[in-house]
Amino acid sequence: MLKPETIALIKGKNFATFTTLMKDGHPATQVMWVDCDDDCVLINTEVHRFKYKHVLRDPRVTVTVWNNESPYTYVEIRGVVSDMIEGPRAREHIDELSMCYYGRPYDPAIIQSERVLLRIRPLKDLV
Amino acid sequence: MLKPETIALIKGKNFATFTTLMKDGHPATQVMWVDCDDDCVLINTEVHRFKYKHVLRDPRVTVTVWNNESPYTYVEIRGVVSDMIEGPRAREHIDELSMCYYGRPYDPAIIQSERVLLRIRPLKDLV
Repeated sequence: MLKPETIALIKGKNFATFTTLMKDGHPATQVMWVDCDDDCVLINTEVHRFKYKHVLRDPRVTVTVWNNESPYTYVEIRGVVSDMIEGPRAREHIDELSMCYYGRPYDPAIIQSERVLLRIRPLKDLV
Repeated sequence: MLKPETIALIKGKNFATFTTLMKDGHPATQVMWVDCDDDCVLINTEVHRFKYKHVLRDPRVTVTVWNNESPYTYVEIRGVVSDMIEGPRAREHIDELSMCYYGRPYDPAIIQSERVLLRIRPLKDLV
């Protein structure tokens, strides 16, 4: 279970960095939209992206979410990618995220390959 | 040399995540103040912190800096900690950072051990 403070921060239209590990173990960290269910953090990306290739090879990731109004308030969730969901659910989910952050569905013209939804099971949820 | 866009973002009172590697290689990512000189990214921490212990063991780090007004604009700097500066320069530097972000010197009561200034030499500066 994610902590209530973590869920509140993630559901509050705040941004996250998503850190994956490259082949040589060096971390790569990008700014992303973020979502969650009760148990897991959700990151939506595409299958041609390096970050997806990274987690296929090594599922250890870290998601850090800060309050847009005051980045001094943040949570760090260290976890592992436990599920990778492709197909209609991943496609619907990017529309849900876009509605949340942008107020409109995701522009299909931006999609270069296939959306994939990463479920990240926390090992540590550091509020 | 850092790219001009990177320097502008870092000098613009924006926040960063600083990613270090734990003993088992899992990444740890925290929100930090950030500074730079012409060649390196600067992170100021304390010697009792895990992040400092991490870089003593493995100097590979990543700093991601986003525009507070629009986190869609960000830079990712993958690098190695090339210098670790303790003593008066690190102590002065945290006052400089605090003046930049807060408009006043750093509260000495917050310091728990010794400040240390990490110089991070970029391998990749991904604007």
